[in-house]
Amino acid sequence: MVYEATASAPVNIAVIKYWGKRDTKLILPTNSSLSVTLDQDHLRSTTTSRADASFAKDRLWLNGEEEAIKEGGRLHTCIKELRAWRLEEESKQDSLPKIGDLKLHIASYNNFPTAAGLASSASGLAALVASLAALYELPQSRSELSRIARQGSGSACRSLFGGFVAWREGHAKDGSDSLAEEVAPREHWPDLQALICVVSDAKKGTSSTSGMQATVETSPLLQERLRVVPQRMVDISTAIEARDFDEFGRITMADSNQFHAVCLDTAPPIFYLNDTSRAIIALVQELNRASEANGNGLVAAYTFDAGPNAVLYAPAANMPVVIAAVNKYFPQANAFADPFQMGTTATLPAGFDDKVVNGGWEKGAVKQLIHTQVGDGPRRLDDKESLLNTEGIPKTLA
Amino acid sequence: MVYEATASAPVNIAVIKYWGKRDTKLILPTNSSLSVTLDQDHLRSTTTSRADASFAKDRLWLNGEEEAIKEGGRLHTCIKELRAWRLEEESKQDSLPKIGDLKLHIASYNNFPTAAGLASSASGLAALVASLAALYELPQSRSELSRIARQGSGSACRSLFGGFVAWREGHAKDGSDSLAEEVAPREHWPDLQALICVVSDAKKGTSSTSGMQATVETSPLLQERLRVVPQRMVDISTAIEARDFDEFGRITMADSNQFHAVCLDTAPPIFYLNDTSRAIIALVQELNRASEANGNGLVAAYTFDAGPNAVLYAPAANMPVVIAAVNKYFPQANAFADPFQMGTTATLPAGFDDKVVNGGWEKGAVKQLIHTQVGDGPRRLDDKESLLNTEGIPKTLA
Repeated sequence: MVYEATASAPVNIAVIKYWGKRDTKLILPTNSSLSVTLDQDHLRSTTTSRADASFAKDRLWLNGEEEAIKEGGRLHTCIKELRAWRLEEESKQDSLPKIGDLKLHIASYNNFPTAAGLASSASGLAALVASLAALYELPQSRSELSRIARQGSGSACRSLFGGFVAWREGHAKDGSDSLAEEVAPREHWPDLQALICVVSDAKKGTSSTSGMQATVETSPLLQERLRVVPQRMVDISTAIEARDFDEFGRITMADSNQFHAVCLDTAPPIFYLNDTSRAIIALVQELNRASEANGNGLVAAYTFDAGPNAVLYAPAANMPVVIAAVNKYFPQANAFADPFQMGTTATLPAGFDDKVVNGGWEKGAVKQLIHTQVGDGPRRLDDKESLLNTEGIPKTLA
Repeated sequence: MVYEATASAPVNIAVIKYWGKRDTKLILPTNSSLSVTLDQDHLRSTTTSRADASFAKDRLWLNGEEEAIKEGGRLHTCIKELRAWRLEEESKQDSLPKIGDLKLHIASYNNFPTAAGLASSASGLAALVASLAALYELPQSRSELSRIARQGSGSACRSLFGGFVAWREGHAKDGSDSLAEEVAPREHWPDLQALICVVSDAKKGTSSTSGMQATVETSPLLQERLRVVPQRMVDISTAIEARDFDEFGRITMADSNQFHAVCLDTAPPIFYLNDTSRAIIALVQELNRASEANGNGLVAAYTFDAGPNAVLYAPAANMPVVIAAVNKYFPQANAFADPFQMGTTATLPAGFDDKVVNGGWEKGAVKQLIHTQVGDGPRRLDDKESLLNTEGIPKTLA
C-alpha cells in the first residue's frame, strides 16, 4: 500500500497588498489583503507527498533540488501541524491507517521558471498543504488549512481558494483568526483575465532588498496605510460582487501605488519599480484616459508585487487591446504563446497618444507575456501525476 | 536720473520638502519647509528693474525672451504689491521721487541653463522682488518681502535669505504669517557643500506631470506626512544648530523619500526618480554604510526635487570622496569644473562594494556635476551690472 497524494495549487496576485507583519513568527499581517487566483492551467505548483515506513527522515525536493527542512523553520512548522492533525484523527478513529508517524518524502515542482520573477512560495506552500491534507485525509476546512499555509509563507494562505480571496488579518494573538476566505468563486466573474508582463531587470539598477519589516519599523506613512486598507477591502469586495471593473481597477492601481509608496518611505528606501515598470504604468494610464475620453470605462488595471513585473487585469473583451498595446510598445524577446488566440493586432482606442512611452521600447525590456485568467483553488491530481518514483525519489532525478 | 536697481538671488534646495497648497491663489502651503541656500557665485538669477516715464507699459524679459505680465497672474501680483508699498511710502514722505506710478522694464537672467533641470522660478522671483525692493527703497524686512515672493512662486520666499531657511506655513487666512525666516546664516555652518548631479532624462521614460494639487486631492498618505513634518522641522533645525551632519542627513534623505512616496501615492501616480536617480541613491547609501561600518559618520545625504537630478549634501571634508564616487560610476558627458579643486581621485571608504551600481553606468546618464556650497541671500549689484541698455531693452537683445 502506497500512502501518497498529489495536488496542484495556483498562483495568486494581490490587488490589496500584504506588506508588513505584526508577528513574524506566526506570520500575522499588519493588514488584511485580497487577491485574484490565477488559472492553474497556465501557472501552478504541483506537490506529491508520500508517507512510508521505509523512509529514514522527512525530505523535500523543490524543482528537483533537495531543500533542508530546518527544525523550527517554516516548512517544518507546516508539516508538524498537519501531522499533528492526522495523529489526532488516528487517535479518534482506530480504523485509520497509522501513517501520521511515518516519515515523508515530498516533491514539488513549479511549471513556471523562477526567472519569470513570479512568487513561487505562495503556490508552492499551498500545494504542499493541499497534498498533505489529501494524504492525511484531514477533515479541516480550507480556511483552517489556510492558517497552516500562512505560517509557511504569508500569502500562500490565499492560494488555497480559487476566485477572489481575502486574507483576514485577524485579532487573536495566536493567529487562529488570521486566515483566508473566499470572497467570490471564479464562476462569479470568470471573464476577468490577467496579462503578466515579465520585465527585464538586467538593466543596470539597484538590487531590491526585501524589507517588509524595515517598512514596519521605519515608514511613518505605513500608519496611514493601515487606516486606509479596511475601507479598501470593503470597497473592492463590493466591486467584485458587482463585477464593476472600473471600481475594481481604480482600487487595484491605487493600492499597488500605495504599497510602493510605503516601500519608498522606508529607511533605507526600497524600490521595486524600474523605468520599464513606470512606462507600463504610463501605457495603461493612457489606454484608460483615451477610453474614458471616448465615453468608455477603464481598459485595464496594473498591479506590481515586490519586483518590476506588471500584472495587468482586464475583462476578456478588453484583452486584445491590452495585448496589442503592450506588444507594440514593448516587443518581447520570447514569442507570445497567445493561449486565448486573441492575436496582437487589435486597434487601440481612438485618441491614444503614444508619446507617453516615447513611441516604444527596445526589444526585451519586457521579456515575456503570460496570458491567463481567474482560476480555481487547489486540485487533487490523479496518482499518475505523482512526482515520486517507486523508491520515493523525484522522477526527474531518477 | 535713471531709477533702476539690479539684484541677484540664489537657488535654494529644500531638505524638508514643500508639496501641496492649502490655498492655490495666495500660495499657502500644506506644510512648513526648510532649505539650504546655495552660493550665488555658482548659481544665481540676476534681475534689473527700471522705472521710467518714457515706458508705455510694464514689460519683462526672462533670459532675453519677453514674457507677458498677465493681469491677475503671479508676476502681476508681485509687481502690484511692491508698487503699492512704494506708493504708500511716497504718500508718507513728500521728498521721495514719484516713481511708484511709472511703468517698469524688468530683465532677468539665470546663469545656469534651463536644461540643467534646476528650478529657476525660486531664484528668479526672489531676484525680481529684491531688485524692485531696492529700486523702491522699501523699508520692509526680508521676511515681509518673502510674503510677496511666495505669491510669485512658493519656494521663492526661501531664496530671500542665505544659509538655512524655514518657510513657516502660517495659519492666517490671508497668508500674512506664511513667510520665510532665517534658521541659521551661512556663517554658522559654512562648511556644508552641495554636489548637483544633473541626470539625463533622455532615456525613454514617462513624462513627469506636475501634480502638487493632485497629491493634495488624491493621496491618502499625504495626511500622515502633514502630521510628520512639524517634528521634522524641529529636529532638522536642532541638527543645523548643532552642525550635526548625521542627523541632518538622515532627516534630509527621509524627507526626500517621503515626498516621492506621496507623489507615487497620487492618482494617477507621479514619478520623478528614474533608474539613474535610484542608482545614485544606492551609491550614497553604500558610501554611508561602508563609512559607518568603519566607525565613521554619514558621508553624504541625497535629496531630489520634482525631477531626476540628485543634490548631494556633505561637509567639505567628505566632498572629495563623494565626487570621486560619482565620477567613477557615473562618468559625465560634460567635464567637471571642480571649483574647489578637490580632484576626482579620492579613495572610497574601505569595504565599499560597488555591486550596488553594477560596477558603473554608461557615460552621460549623469550629464554634469555642479559643485557649490551654502551661500548668502540676495545681493544688490552695482549699476555696471545692469541688464538693460539706455533704451530700457535687455542688452543681450540690443
